[in-house]
Amino acid sequence: MRIGLDVMGGDYAPEKIISGAILAYKELKNSAEIVLFGPQNIITELLKKHKTEPNCFSIEHCSEVIEMCENPVKAFTTKTDSSIVKGFKLLTNNEIQGFTSAGNSGAVMVGATKVSKTIEGIIRPCISSLIPNTNNSFNVLLDVGINVDCAPEQLYQFGIIGSIYANLINNIPNPKVGLLNIGSEEIKGNRIVRQAFELMKSSNDFNFYGNIEGNEIFDINKADVIVTDGFTGNVLLKQAESFFNLAYQNSNENSFINKFNYELYGGTPVLGINHNLIIGHGISNDIAVKNMIIQTKKLHDTAILANIKKMFRYEKN
Amino acid sequence: MRIGLDVMGGDYAPEKIISGAILAYKELKNSAEIVLFGPQNIITELLKKHKTEPNCFSIEHCSEVIEMCENPVKAFTTKTDSSIVKGFKLLTNNEIQGFTSAGNSGAVMVGATKVSKTIEGIIRPCISSLIPNTNNSFNVLLDVGINVDCAPEQLYQFGIIGSIYANLINNIPNPKVGLLNIGSEEIKGNRIVRQAFELMKSSNDFNFYGNIEGNEIFDINKADVIVTDGFTGNVLLKQAESFFNLAYQNSNENSFINKFNYELYGGTPVLGINHNLIIGHGISNDIAVKNMIIQTKKLHDTAILANIKKMFRYEKN
Repeated sequence: MRIGLDVMGGDYAPEKIISGAILAYKELKNSAEIVLFGPQNIITELLKKHKTEPNCFSIEHCSEVIEMCENPVKAFTTKTDSSIVKGFKLLTNNEIQGFTSAGNSGAVMVGATKVSKTIEGIIRPCISSLIPNTNNSFNVLLDVGINVDCAPEQLYQFGIIGSIYANLINNIPNPKVGLLNIGSEEIKGNRIVRQAFELMKSSNDFNFYGNIEGNEIFDINKADVIVTDGFTGNVLLKQAESFFNLAYQNSNENSFINKFNYELYGGTPVLGINHNLIIGHGISNDIAVKNMIIQTKKLHDTAILANIKKMFRYEKN
Repeated sequence: MRIGLDVMGGDYAPEKIISGAILAYKELKNSAEIVLFGPQNIITELLKKHKTEPNCFSIEHCSEVIEMCENPVKAFTTKTDSSIVKGFKLLTNNEIQGFTSAGNSGAVMVGATKVSKTIEGIIRPCISSLIPNTNNSFNVLLDVGINVDCAPEQLYQFGIIGSIYANLINNIPNPKVGLLNIGSEEIKGNRIVRQAFELMKSSNDFNFYGNIEGNEIFDINKADVIVTDGFTGNVLLKQAESFFNLAYQNSNENSFINKFNYELYGGTPVLGINHNLIIGHGISNDIAVKNMIIQTKKLHDTAILANIKKMFRYEKN
């Protein structure tokens, strides 16, 4: 497969993006080709600095850069020779089979919804995050920010998508899907969540576990997939991130606390669109970039797209 | 003042409740009188075991016990000689000026809303939690569980109540009130939160800071009060609690991580009703019980009730 990487996106771009690409190249060996999107001269210069042969990578020259603070829609529409816009162009042409960017996430989402487009049958795409659990593995939390208001049917679809993701990406057979709530009983929660529970409890599309509370997110014996709306998911995830920062600053190196270093995990897959796409944090360092590339490859290798599409075709019939 | 304590409430009742009462007695000295609600014989036996003079306390004999798993409404209605029901009776008679229980929180909330009743002008009561910040002090998060669906006007009222609380209990002059959201910009969030932002930004009732993100909850330089609905607040708080448990199990004793030991803080004040009331966790140990009592005293000493009432009288005019 060919994996596109936005060299100009992120607070530490382009330096750390290139170092990340080199780390990924070493890890992937020849199992995938990394395509660097950005100004040719900057890329070749940085590769030279790292004493890396330019022919380890493909380079897709882009003359424009979408800055982090730009208006997403306007930037995506006007800067047609930017790394983000070209990334989506090559995705739709199937010249690359996945794309990852730590750049202007609004602009990336414009590409996701307007160019890559939502998979038929899916109400709206979502983004998910891996939550470290107490068994050296990960639970999946979704949505973590795109859908701030969710209908019960959307939460139900997150259950399907999350289940496929946990199965293929985290290698969990028949993943348990939990609905984030403020109590374990069926009657708990707000109207939307109670309606979602109603839909989920008789689901044949995934293995419904029941309600999951905030203190059970990191558990290994509860749900493998935690479904919530993008508002709650976003504040939860950000709280978890800041927890890591606080704990890390205040403790000695601790392998457990390190598991909460979200920076190292790479990015967030956009699920429900027609291509493999990983959005990174603005603050992505080289390790994060390397992992974004590896993640993109994993999306491709596990054929998660095809699996999601298949599931939603089935849904419609 | 006289502080009522439910001796029969909580997973470690009555043993740890009594040890907590003794700890509080030593700390409070003669500045407040602790009234123990429960079976006289059990109380005197435990005090004897701890070699504590029974006259250090008042005892309010109760022949019945509301169990943790009982139906709250039914239990509150039928067990009129239980510690919870009698606690509210003495609150309304002004025989005690505050009450605290780690027992069946549903039953306590029945008492809060049906006996103590919501303060005029307040849409619905809320519960708040102290969030340790990076400056050895605390931010206030509310609501953390009662109001799963909130109108913008309720969020606005939480701003008023939280501001009064942070000022009086946390000693913060002119506390900054933040609205929990998924981004800092005014246009972020769901419909309810955007409408709440509109109300808050021109508030004369509190010092509005703006939006607060999930990773800023522990910050000292952002908001002193964090307003959210009871659904989001509840899952956030529970996540924070489980973080402590995880980090604690996996690290050596660490004074910073210990700050996240919510068990030690005591309970959750119910704000917006006509009496001083602290609800404890079921798992409260003696330190938690001691702190629940100290917290109840602080509610009384700072006259928070009068301040909230005054504010909402003003609101109506």
